[in-house]
Amino acid sequence: MQPAFGEISVSDFFYRHRELAGFSNPSRATYMIIREAVENSLDACEEAGVLPSVKVLLNSVERGVYYLRVEDNGFGVPPSEVPFAFGKFLYGSKFGVKQRRGIFGLGISMALLYSQVTSGKPASVTVSNGREIFEIKLRIDIERNMPVVEGRKRLMNKDGWHGSIVELYFKGDYPRAEEKILNYFRLTSIASPHAEVTFTDPSGNVHVFKRSVERIPSLPIEVLPHPHGVDAEMLRRLLKRNEGKSLLSFMVKSFQKVGYATAKKFLESAGFSPHQPTSTLTNDDVLELLEAMKSYDFPSPDARCLSPIGEDALREAIINVFEPEFVAACQRPPAVYLGHPFIVEAAVAYGCKGVEGELALFRFANRIPLLYDMHSDVSMSVLKRFNWGSYLPVRPQAMGVFTHICSTRIPFKTAGKECVADTPEIEREIELALKECCRRLKTYLTGKVSGDEWGRKFNAYRKYLPKIAKFAAELAGRKEAPNIALVLEQISGGKKSERGLA
Amino acid sequence: MQPAFGEISVSDFFYRHRELAGFSNPSRATYMIIREAVENSLDACEEAGVLPSVKVLLNSVERGVYYLRVEDNGFGVPPSEVPFAFGKFLYGSKFGVKQRRGIFGLGISMALLYSQVTSGKPASVTVSNGREIFEIKLRIDIERNMPVVEGRKRLMNKDGWHGSIVELYFKGDYPRAEEKILNYFRLTSIASPHAEVTFTDPSGNVHVFKRSVERIPSLPIEVLPHPHGVDAEMLRRLLKRNEGKSLLSFMVKSFQKVGYATAKKFLESAGFSPHQPTSTLTNDDVLELLEAMKSYDFPSPDARCLSPIGEDALREAIINVFEPEFVAACQRPPAVYLGHPFIVEAAVAYGCKGVEGELALFRFANRIPLLYDMHSDVSMSVLKRFNWGSYLPVRPQAMGVFTHICSTRIPFKTAGKECVADTPEIEREIELALKECCRRLKTYLTGKVSGDEWGRKFNAYRKYLPKIAKFAAELAGRKEAPNIALVLEQISGGKKSERGLA
Repeated sequence: MQPAFGEISVSDFFYRHRELAGFSNPSRATYMIIREAVENSLDACEEAGVLPSVKVLLNSVERGVYYLRVEDNGFGVPPSEVPFAFGKFLYGSKFGVKQRRGIFGLGISMALLYSQVTSGKPASVTVSNGREIFEIKLRIDIERNMPVVEGRKRLMNKDGWHGSIVELYFKGDYPRAEEKILNYFRLTSIASPHAEVTFTDPSGNVHVFKRSVERIPSLPIEVLPHPHGVDAEMLRRLLKRNEGKSLLSFMVKSFQKVGYATAKKFLESAGFSPHQPTSTLTNDDVLELLEAMKSYDFPSPDARCLSPIGEDALREAIINVFEPEFVAACQRPPAVYLGHPFIVEAAVAYGCKGVEGELALFRFANRIPLLYDMHSDVSMSVLKRFNWGSYLPVRPQAMGVFTHICSTRIPFKTAGKECVADTPEIEREIELALKECCRRLKTYLTGKVSGDEWGRKFNAYRKYLPKIAKFAAELAGRKEAPNIALVLEQISGGKKSERGLA
Repeated sequence: MQPAFGEISVSDFFYRHRELAGFSNPSRATYMIIREAVENSLDACEEAGVLPSVKVLLNSVERGVYYLRVEDNGFGVPPSEVPFAFGKFLYGSKFGVKQRRGIFGLGISMALLYSQVTSGKPASVTVSNGREIFEIKLRIDIERNMPVVEGRKRLMNKDGWHGSIVELYFKGDYPRAEEKILNYFRLTSIASPHAEVTFTDPSGNVHVFKRSVERIPSLPIEVLPHPHGVDAEMLRRLLKRNEGKSLLSFMVKSFQKVGYATAKKFLESAGFSPHQPTSTLTNDDVLELLEAMKSYDFPSPDARCLSPIGEDALREAIINVFEPEFVAACQRPPAVYLGHPFIVEAAVAYGCKGVEGELALFRFANRIPLLYDMHSDVSMSVLKRFNWGSYLPVRPQAMGVFTHICSTRIPFKTAGKECVADTPEIEREIELALKECCRRLKTYLTGKVSGDEWGRKFNAYRKYLPKIAKFAAELAGRKEAPNIALVLEQISGGKKSERGLA
């Protein structure tokens, strides 16, 4: 007997296999649902050019059901887009070539799905761009992957409030998830030091994670693909969009950093006439063009589509959260993986508060803290074979190692975005960044071990001077304190700056 | 400025995020593409009730491109279904409640997608149920998630051949994948000891993985869902399908092991009238019914939808592949996870050929060998905290630990099916199975350490007697040799049977 054939929708697929999106048990689901909502909010605020203030409230309702409310101060999704952006899988605004936290068109819909499946209650999304407020209740028709609007209200907006509020009921387990969730917030204030998050937990405790940086990071720019990042499928799509054009104009219009001169030189070297219309290419021509593109030496990818944390912001944020004795942070220059640019940042913090044992690894990707499956992660692979002995004159104590990968294509292993696949290009950059940090740490530790009195004084300055400067600036009515790091560096001179302020 | 909103197809999603399906680099893709095709073939043969013989051929073509051909002896998918079954994501026959290797409607389509994207060439699928042969060339329209047939041929079938042949071109890296691929085949002959696989590698070497069992395992049966395995979404779907029926009849027709008596008792205990029509239930009624179902003590789930390997077959297969000094295999009784039945099997083999170091873990799920991301797997978690010291009087040597989880709902962490999520129910069963195996191993090792002459003789019998029996049976023209394990057990008595033949 032949079995019956049929089709399921993508939402039905994730309904059946929710573990793939990280929703594997009530405790992990609690963590995931909060994370998806918060990331969505952070992305929304940054797109709107607003310093993010996100308020998270979690209440225990009954029989393992929780109520979650996440409010941000962005400009909200347009009300007409709310049902699809929240209630349809693989629908969204995050498909272009540009770094964002969410890239899947999956996260927030998965949160809604899990909520509806475990609580039976619809979700509520409230948005406003500062004028009217719209409150929309919705449910997902999982079998059809379509949103179903169950209610829509228009409210007056007297105070000019703008932003979005997501409200969900779901079965969870906060006590088991608490540690991860608080860690997630702590680490979010390192990866997004310009964001402020307030979390009210089910016992009513309010946890405030303050911003340590008062400026919005420069927004990444959407760019064209790089010729090395293209495969047969994408090349075919690009050709289809440029039907009738010449190969020369196709190359210039379709790829980043390819001007007429470069395009001409490349096409001639590959044996194509620059004036050949794209429509005359046979299947074999397309493959030949692809092969030639892969091996031609184009300018390296444009990194303006990325948004790294920055050495200073990373260091400040780590000092803010972990109060270490010493921090060294390093940002690598842009590198390339499958034609996509990526930047690795790393930091090594010595003597961290809250780090138990010798060493703890903290991983970030596109400003998202990664908290699960550490042992399958590329950073862990690098750490395991890293030669600490040659950098540390003493055994490490409460040392925090921080890695941040940002890219338009992070090779996540799971749809829950928990760990990054081992890729030689990324491994190399992480290793180089760590070496640079450790070189600075070694200098510091060597000085410390030799009982350098100056070093101790310098560290005292490092600790108190910024606070004094800030206080003085406030007294003087100035918004920003002077950059004390710079001042101290000038005082101490090149060599000594390696110590307290690498 | 508001960003543009849009939708992508599920195939486009996996095209953009192929790492999620395990296609993260050329070497891993080589492994995945072979595995997906072979699993598809094994499932097809078993569905057809045929002892699987699968022939795999991999050739290196040029510039990193390989040609793969996988042939099986099933009855093929009907030719009209070929384009959709192979060229459309989330389409298939594998969505019912029953154990199968593939459950995602994803694997083989992903193999075709990867092939087309990296080689630019269409796939070829040839099928026959013993009558005509159809050869279909197809490509996936990735943006629309639709198959595109590029050619269709009907061929005469003089020899009555039946089965399917899949031919793909793809960019890969065999040298780096070789070890994993050969391991995959070796372990497949443990998880599916009734299958024969012949693999011709790119250098022309032929590797034959013979079957060690000549009978097809009894086919799992498709069953109705268990009341404990249902959530708000599924309950709503089931109610929709039974509109107009009484609650009593709904319960009996929708769930396994719920007869009229059980249904009546349950409904009354939950405060519902058995005669109430399902259409009169409000949203709150549905949630109340669900809550009552979760806490009611229904009979435990039906395990006939599962297909474990079996203690004997598992032991035989391990002896066949690893030639250990001693094996103990154990099958646990069915247990329940989220209302889905599952069975854990485990084996411990001592003194394995080809196992280096003290101990190696071999993981299986629904008869699929799992070869990547071992450190994130539930079996590894159990192993790490397992108290070996209390079982082994000596240090382990070349010990193989085998775990097999079979279920209608394996909580895989990745769509590439590489590791199973930590779930307390599954952890517990693995631990109990390992304890049972180790208890037997301890008895064996204790006997061995005390220099028990009888034990050594017994092991010699164990090794040679089955071969003699098989030879004798063949001479006598009988199909099956007598069960020597049973005979030896009778000879040795209860206590001694623990040694050579646990």
